[in-house]
Amino acid sequence: MKPIQVGLLGIGTVGSGVFNVLHRNQEEIRRRAGRGIEIAMVADLDVERARKVVGEGVQVVNDARAVIANPDIDIVIELIGGYGVAKALVLEAIAAGKHVVTANKALLAVHGTEIFAAASAKGVMVAFEAAVAGGIPIIKALREGLTANRIQWLAGIINGTTNFILSEMRDKGLDFAVVLKEAQRLGYAEADPTFDIEGVDAAHKATIMSAIAFGIPVQFDKAYVEGITQLSATDIKYAEQLGYRIKLLGITKRVERTDATGKAVGGIELRVHPSLVPAKRLIANVEGAMNAVVVQGDAVGATLYYGKGAGSEPTASAVIADLVDITRLHTVDPLNRVPHLAFQPHTLDQAMSELPVLPMSEVVTSYYLRLRVADQAGVLAKVTGILAGAGISIDAVLQREADEVGGEGSTQTDLIILTHDTREGTMNDAIAQMQQLPTVLAPITRIRKEELN
Amino acid sequence: MKPIQVGLLGIGTVGSGVFNVLHRNQEEIRRRAGRGIEIAMVADLDVERARKVVGEGVQVVNDARAVIANPDIDIVIELIGGYGVAKALVLEAIAAGKHVVTANKALLAVHGTEIFAAASAKGVMVAFEAAVAGGIPIIKALREGLTANRIQWLAGIINGTTNFILSEMRDKGLDFAVVLKEAQRLGYAEADPTFDIEGVDAAHKATIMSAIAFGIPVQFDKAYVEGITQLSATDIKYAEQLGYRIKLLGITKRVERTDATGKAVGGIELRVHPSLVPAKRLIANVEGAMNAVVVQGDAVGATLYYGKGAGSEPTASAVIADLVDITRLHTVDPLNRVPHLAFQPHTLDQAMSELPVLPMSEVVTSYYLRLRVADQAGVLAKVTGILAGAGISIDAVLQREADEVGGEGSTQTDLIILTHDTREGTMNDAIAQMQQLPTVLAPITRIRKEELN
Repeated sequence: MKPIQVGLLGIGTVGSGVFNVLHRNQEEIRRRAGRGIEIAMVADLDVERARKVVGEGVQVVNDARAVIANPDIDIVIELIGGYGVAKALVLEAIAAGKHVVTANKALLAVHGTEIFAAASAKGVMVAFEAAVAGGIPIIKALREGLTANRIQWLAGIINGTTNFILSEMRDKGLDFAVVLKEAQRLGYAEADPTFDIEGVDAAHKATIMSAIAFGIPVQFDKAYVEGITQLSATDIKYAEQLGYRIKLLGITKRVERTDATGKAVGGIELRVHPSLVPAKRLIANVEGAMNAVVVQGDAVGATLYYGKGAGSEPTASAVIADLVDITRLHTVDPLNRVPHLAFQPHTLDQAMSELPVLPMSEVVTSYYLRLRVADQAGVLAKVTGILAGAGISIDAVLQREADEVGGEGSTQTDLIILTHDTREGTMNDAIAQMQQLPTVLAPITRIRKEELN
Repeated sequence: MKPIQVGLLGIGTVGSGVFNVLHRNQEEIRRRAGRGIEIAMVADLDVERARKVVGEGVQVVNDARAVIANPDIDIVIELIGGYGVAKALVLEAIAAGKHVVTANKALLAVHGTEIFAAASAKGVMVAFEAAVAGGIPIIKALREGLTANRIQWLAGIINGTTNFILSEMRDKGLDFAVVLKEAQRLGYAEADPTFDIEGVDAAHKATIMSAIAFGIPVQFDKAYVEGITQLSATDIKYAEQLGYRIKLLGITKRVERTDATGKAVGGIELRVHPSLVPAKRLIANVEGAMNAVVVQGDAVGATLYYGKGAGSEPTASAVIADLVDITRLHTVDPLNRVPHLAFQPHTLDQAMSELPVLPMSEVVTSYYLRLRVADQAGVLAKVTGILAGAGISIDAVLQREADEVGGEGSTQTDLIILTHDTREGTMNDAIAQMQQLPTVLAPITRIRKEELN
């Protein structure tokens, strides 16, 4: 049988990986897929560079639309990135009846609903294993491996750049800005690292996983997003002393409880922020640029998936797995294929109305608070009095000697408090009150804490 | 559309889990599968107990063949276990045109070739996610998630009973026999624990993964199998001091090298035995009855999969995932389905001839050796002389003070040696020579060591 014909839009780092791995492992891949898979045409603005990667025998053009228009092409891989031209090209490829493979998390997190609807209407597949956690087959695990389960929550280290920075901050006791520069020098962080360090990239990925886990549409605009730029080496050190590591987690959780007034609060938490995680958890020990996702299902319990979340060939591994899936399934009646977002598309809207994404003020979690306070009697009583008044219960308090914190003769010290589960809105109010105390000398640091059990 | 009709053979721990989870999560599962999934008929020798689990509305019989003969049944789940009647029933179900889901690792590791051939001839699926590592979707990851890769090796903690025992031995400094009794009392080990503690269960699972990873037939008879019954608390303690944990690993590895005579040695290592693993590896920190598998692919690098490897609902999670897959795919042209063993079946035999399972003597790994020796000058020189003569290079030596090992005034001590990579046959010869030394006072302990990098 003739190899399935693939057109590649954008042949940078990941695209080169796809081409190279497909070529190197073509025999194994053919033995799995039952049919060869061949990159027949490549579009890239830099035709010279593209030509160097693919050699002769593959058509190279600078116009992506020429690939989409080619009637011999069965599958289009979109590796351009971003929301702009990539969106137009993906929709055009779908309209032309091509199956699409993409690694574009931003595009799917923001425009997934439109794209999947167009694909369903046209009867083509849009596959995106590479969009979340690189080479880890987490999309397949969530969409197919855990179908028996009512997913309760998932939490992931899904941005390698920030995990590398946090690992370095902890190992070397350095502050964020210093490590970021080093990461940029080593190529672990981009020249403009905003999407990574502000948590946006992780939120794109968490949004996609949230949809697949709970059967709701992608809703990036409802995600709470907080990056790691405000983290200090001090807090990492205190967390360590309390038995925790600080990780940037993408978290999504199904919530079924009643609020203070007795009203049922059903919904989905969707949030990215730095989190204290018990040091003994496996995910707390995921270091450097590695990724890992923990998924809690009601039948299976906790499962964890770990691997490289970025890079040329790890990401190519996921792109090619999608190519093999499509090669196996493209002749199948579209109704029998695996739904794009794991659940039958006609059920998503009702689920969204039953499981709205909750505002951050309704999230319930526990907290690490650090207060820079005057080293004098009665401070702890005032602070804990405010917490008690708000109904916030305390799990642990760590008060440092003033000398240790500010040097000999210091009149300031750090008060660290771990709380039990509290509604974020309640915690916001309590922090505002504590901040008013004359003995609280600096902005209060608040980091959320997840026990993940 | 009418729910897909499932017949269940054997409703013990796992069968009850399947029934309960299918019932509890029926709406979510229907939203994923696009069609309801219904246990319509159950066969169990204990009809009373079965009736208590399923209640009214489900037909309960004591004759498995009545389920297979029922023309309304689309899928048969085999949860009887063992090679005997289970094999006959699976083959009869296939002959009757039923798709089969099984958790029976022993059956597939030993008779998989015959069963998959029968299924292919009849155009039905045999799915077995639950046969390896319980609820962890490792079969799907290997078979579909990592299809881009030339798999290099995989290593797994795939028997919860032995991992529980090893964790307890290490935590409490107890010897094997003591902990086994405790594990039996707690229900973590069966009354007859032979298959678990002798490594047979892990070898069944490693055999299945080996076939899927490398595209070869299942070859349980070629697996090297060594259990944990000879492990002592002493070796666990020494390993710890050297920075290692001892785990029972199922390992399968692709080998491409030349032997001492320059001849190419291509093949597959397939082995289960206790292994030293660096304590800093994630898999070394998998404790208690949990399972984990590390897979090394040439494109993706190392990925790890972690979760519960046994139990009612974790195993049910895997069984039901297979039911959903079959529900989605049963109308598909069999040639377009995912092959049972990941690779097109007509390619397996040639791969077996190119990649034979190597005898244990040809395996290359590193070693931990513990020699109980006379505490006198010259012993270390003699031992290391034998190793040097065999071309075995030493990575580390740990010599204990005699007083520490045998109490005050002791004339014996322990000599612990870590080696670099060595052919097992070479190591066997060297151990035989060292054992002849008059200053070596007890049988030499040899535990293999895997760096897993």
